[in-house]
Amino acid sequence: MSFSTIAIIGLGLQGGSIGLAVKAYLPRARTTGYDVSPAHRARAAERGLVDEVCETPADAVRNADLVIFCVPPGAMGMAAEQVREALPAHCLVSDVGSSKQAIARDLGAALPDHMVIPAHPVAGTENSGPDAGFAHLFRNRWCIVTPPATTDMLKLSDLVGFWEALGANVEIMTPEHHDLVLAVTSHLPHLIAYTIVGTASDLEDVTQSEVIKYSAGGFRDFTRIAASDPTMWRDVFLSNKDAVLTMLQRFTEDLTALQRAIRVGDGDMLFDQFKRTRAIRRSIIEEGQDDSRPDFGRNDHENEK
Amino acid sequence: MSFSTIAIIGLGLQGGSIGLAVKAYLPRARTTGYDVSPAHRARAAERGLVDEVCETPADAVRNADLVIFCVPPGAMGMAAEQVREALPAHCLVSDVGSSKQAIARDLGAALPDHMVIPAHPVAGTENSGPDAGFAHLFRNRWCIVTPPATTDMLKLSDLVGFWEALGANVEIMTPEHHDLVLAVTSHLPHLIAYTIVGTASDLEDVTQSEVIKYSAGGFRDFTRIAASDPTMWRDVFLSNKDAVLTMLQRFTEDLTALQRAIRVGDGDMLFDQFKRTRAIRRSIIEEGQDDSRPDFGRNDHENEK
Repeated sequence: MSFSTIAIIGLGLQGGSIGLAVKAYLPRARTTGYDVSPAHRARAAERGLVDEVCETPADAVRNADLVIFCVPPGAMGMAAEQVREALPAHCLVSDVGSSKQAIARDLGAALPDHMVIPAHPVAGTENSGPDAGFAHLFRNRWCIVTPPATTDMLKLSDLVGFWEALGANVEIMTPEHHDLVLAVTSHLPHLIAYTIVGTASDLEDVTQSEVIKYSAGGFRDFTRIAASDPTMWRDVFLSNKDAVLTMLQRFTEDLTALQRAIRVGDGDMLFDQFKRTRAIRRSIIEEGQDDSRPDFGRNDHENEK
Repeated sequence: MSFSTIAIIGLGLQGGSIGLAVKAYLPRARTTGYDVSPAHRARAAERGLVDEVCETPADAVRNADLVIFCVPPGAMGMAAEQVREALPAHCLVSDVGSSKQAIARDLGAALPDHMVIPAHPVAGTENSGPDAGFAHLFRNRWCIVTPPATTDMLKLSDLVGFWEALGANVEIMTPEHHDLVLAVTSHLPHLIAYTIVGTASDLEDVTQSEVIKYSAGGFRDFTRIAASDPTMWRDVFLSNKDAVLTMLQRFTEDLTALQRAIRVGDGDMLFDQFKRTRAIRRSIIEEGQDDSRPDFGRNDHENEK
């Protein structure tokens, strides 16, 4: 392992999982960490998310050769500025943010003398905070690394090795392409899930209690995604605005076409659209990106009760 | 138990699960079944979904005191006509369809001399066919019964008792209200999931392979719902057109408002919308309608591998 001291700024789901994963899979590396919330720092120390929870971001990075910013996309620039004076010159700077162009720009502006290689592990749950992390979050998930054109190839290789050690498969792409791909596989799904849960909350002729009771018909799946951290997701949409709006436009066109098919009673069009989608599900399961058990295995669990 | 012979027309996920649930929870009742597909009949017999798989729908219902139609909403009327001559006069007619006004009308028109009490167990998985069913599908799920105004109260009570014996909680409502509630908790989520999976399949600048690889960011949840039976869902949208279009209109308005907030950079509006939705998730878990484990427990499973 090329990194001996890893500083983690932000000890929520991602930061906490990285800390625990390093302990599990890279036990010789030392970890330090900082979180802006005193309560989260205390809890992080109790759970042992990192070897040392520091009281300032500067203390956390002072001996680091890798610092990973695990804060919401909109807070990356400020978090980076807070460590600038203390950050060793050789320390590699990375992050786990869900948008890459804006974050690369913000980290680069705050730390112009450091090598910055942004990254995004495509892994998570709907939970957040210092209790949410676990060591195997990244296992068999993809981590997308978006090196700048002028990247240090040795440091890039070290970062790739780091994520592979944590169990992830690594893919390299440009920040522009990352932002387009994630707009469709992650950002648009979250936007739609937040929307429909909001729509269902505001109805007059269907009560909230009915929405909750009959949620097993499909709605409950959306509430899981819509339970994700609101601060982070606000920042994702603001920091990847163009790609999200582009994908949203495509989605709206497709939805309008299905709406019209329903209105005019075009069953053939509906059937043709609906039967296309099973193949994608099958591929996702074959490639190990989802659970093959029906209903995500919920029924296995319910059966055990 | 008030029913001694139960005929199940359609031996897919719902029909097969009812058959297995009757065996498990009402072992003294006899079940007969029919499916329009010879291959499905053969498989149903192999799995023992019902005590007797019949070669015609008429044979299946000849001695029944309850017949449950478990076919797609658009096939209910024809399935009912096929049993009319053989159906005993006292036999109660019910179904499991996802829309209730259109099905009540179709079953009533086909069987004008029988008591028809439609029902809808709000339970399922993305799988379909004779291999999809399991006995505990209905446990702790809601079954909505929509009796006509002139219902036979004793038969209604028998049907409620039947579903409770299978583990469901029963709620009574009008077919109109059912169709409105399910439009938001089930039909709209499915329409949106089918749409987004279609949108993601048709992009030029993001490949299908990328959509699959990075689906763990949220998209994979939608592919599960969009893997549901296309024939059934075509019929659901056609048979509950008005309520679906009403809910879709509300959803589109809300999505447009969020789109505008992203475009103008209104982070406060986004945050306010996103933070409202966690409470609903919490209630759904508290009421036992979803799994409390993060990511539906997927990570527990992956950890075991």
